[in-house]
Amino acid sequence: MNKELILLGHGSGGKLSHQLLDDLIIPTLSGISLAGQNDAALVDADGRRLAFTTDSYVVDPVFFPGGNIGTLAVNGTVNDLAMMGARPLFLSAGLIIEEGFSRNDLGTILASMRQAADAAGVRIVTGDTKVVPRGKADRIFINTSGIGLVEHDFTISGACARPGDRIIINGTVGDHGIAVMAKREGLELLTDIVSDCAPLNGLVADIIAEGGGDVHVLRDPTRGGVATTLKEIALQSDVTIMIREEAIPLAGPVKGVCAILGLDPLYVANEGKLLVAVAPSAAERVLARMKTHPCGGAAAIIGEVTDAGGGKLRLETSVGGVRAVEMLAGEQLPRIC
Amino acid sequence: MNKELILLGHGSGGKLSHQLLDDLIIPTLSGISLAGQNDAALVDADGRRLAFTTDSYVVDPVFFPGGNIGTLAVNGTVNDLAMMGARPLFLSAGLIIEEGFSRNDLGTILASMRQAADAAGVRIVTGDTKVVPRGKADRIFINTSGIGLVEHDFTISGACARPGDRIIINGTVGDHGIAVMAKREGLELLTDIVSDCAPLNGLVADIIAEGGGDVHVLRDPTRGGVATTLKEIALQSDVTIMIREEAIPLAGPVKGVCAILGLDPLYVANEGKLLVAVAPSAAERVLARMKTHPCGGAAAIIGEVTDAGGGKLRLETSVGGVRAVEMLAGEQLPRIC
Repeated sequence: MNKELILLGHGSGGKLSHQLLDDLIIPTLSGISLAGQNDAALVDADGRRLAFTTDSYVVDPVFFPGGNIGTLAVNGTVNDLAMMGARPLFLSAGLIIEEGFSRNDLGTILASMRQAADAAGVRIVTGDTKVVPRGKADRIFINTSGIGLVEHDFTISGACARPGDRIIINGTVGDHGIAVMAKREGLELLTDIVSDCAPLNGLVADIIAEGGGDVHVLRDPTRGGVATTLKEIALQSDVTIMIREEAIPLAGPVKGVCAILGLDPLYVANEGKLLVAVAPSAAERVLARMKTHPCGGAAAIIGEVTDAGGGKLRLETSVGGVRAVEMLAGEQLPRIC
Repeated sequence: MNKELILLGHGSGGKLSHQLLDDLIIPTLSGISLAGQNDAALVDADGRRLAFTTDSYVVDPVFFPGGNIGTLAVNGTVNDLAMMGARPLFLSAGLIIEEGFSRNDLGTILASMRQAADAAGVRIVTGDTKVVPRGKADRIFINTSGIGLVEHDFTISGACARPGDRIIINGTVGDHGIAVMAKREGLELLTDIVSDCAPLNGLVADIIAEGGGDVHVLRDPTRGGVATTLKEIALQSDVTIMIREEAIPLAGPVKGVCAILGLDPLYVANEGKLLVAVAPSAAERVLARMKTHPCGGAAAIIGEVTDAGGGKLRLETSVGGVRAVEMLAGEQLPRIC
């Protein structure tokens, strides 16, 4: 591996991404500590607690079952704000378009962005459009940044998981990644898998209303999947997390495509899922509340924080063994978001 | 011209960009009125007036005399916030990197971003990194979004120019565009033209401290240049603006390269320039104050708002004639920022 060049795996959201972030990008740009690395930054603007986040979307193909790059760009950034317990308010939209892109397709994507913004209750208030010559980009890339308002005074962060916390997920894993991959590989006619792409701010509001300060961590398992996200939380909180394979909701068709393509669904991207670490006393209440929300019908407790220290993620497999789970190595599914 | 495809000119910042924005992007995404279209959005976050803006940078080449894509990405967004009279506070950084890009070059660009942020007094607090396969992007694209705090209670907007207002620019025009173009064409050894890329928030603070509510418009003439930006202001404020060619500061080497390449410097991009429309009673004071700032030594009054209505920009040429000036048509210098 040539250490002097940027590799696809540096964009995977997994181990290589973390190395690039930790060794170069974060120390150079900001010096934010591991404990402070969350889905969005918390900043103070003249006494108001704001969440601020950014994501660029480069998904291939641009249109996929269950959404398109525009839906993804709005929901992804809304969700990053929601994961801080913030109420998403305002989004920006930065378009980089390849010369020759269809104006009709652009119109469809923009309409999807507006629809997604309306559904999430946010406003797209500022934007920018660049066009680059043919062959200098791949159809369209969209950056969205977002501002949210934090209206509570407790701390929700990847650094706040504590021994005893239950780990809850709001539904089946891997749907987004497999929907995109199936479309890319021409397998979409064999399945009816659609992306789970959805705004999670409503569900988060319910979780916080029910659990309050007992909600310790909220994070959406996008690139790198559930495994990478939980490993991040274990490292950031310096705890050990155990999850049970049998407890993790997984749709049959996703399982099937994963088997065909040789993918582990725990590493496949989600765009409408969140992981919650919540104090044991509040876990059942929060779970019950989540199940009443349209985005939480299949919510389940999938594990718990077993120990302080370690920074480890363990998986109890369906045959009863226990193994360590690491972050995604290399790049499993490039350009999934 | 095929109306169904996106053309390079749609990213020029000129007439085609405005058509795409007015016909498709703005009505679909937000419906913001012409009067509200400024370098940044003004939003209310729980009683605080914030400016929020975004820009994607796709400049080619990535390194140019006087800066690189990182310097540009920080200063460009700082300036868009400053043009609302806001104090820039926080930036995001969204990187889209082509597989195989040099890690050393990435390090240099990131270090430039940090240095530019420190110089402007802003913090880069959140970011995102995507990597796309070789041939699917051109080296590196950077999006920066920014949040600024508006600490005064008057309105600075492209819609606020009034008859009698003097038009001031803080220095020579066209330096950025010509520095980039000279590098791209291999002409940089023949000239010592460097980009004017600089943060303008300090200068803006001085302008507001001196002019207060007499400062009606602030705008940085980037893509499309001084001509396009003043035409935008004329339309947005529904006034007629007259500028004098002889009054517009222009460096000799820039004039020379423009002549060689057949470019009109009034349409060439700037990255450290701003245009001010200020009430006549305050114009001389504001000009004098600007001249004391490192970014304003060559500041000059270049024209004035002559009439209500019309939405026109007129140029008094150096030979004494007067002609109408329109927005940039087509694409003069692709990927200048």
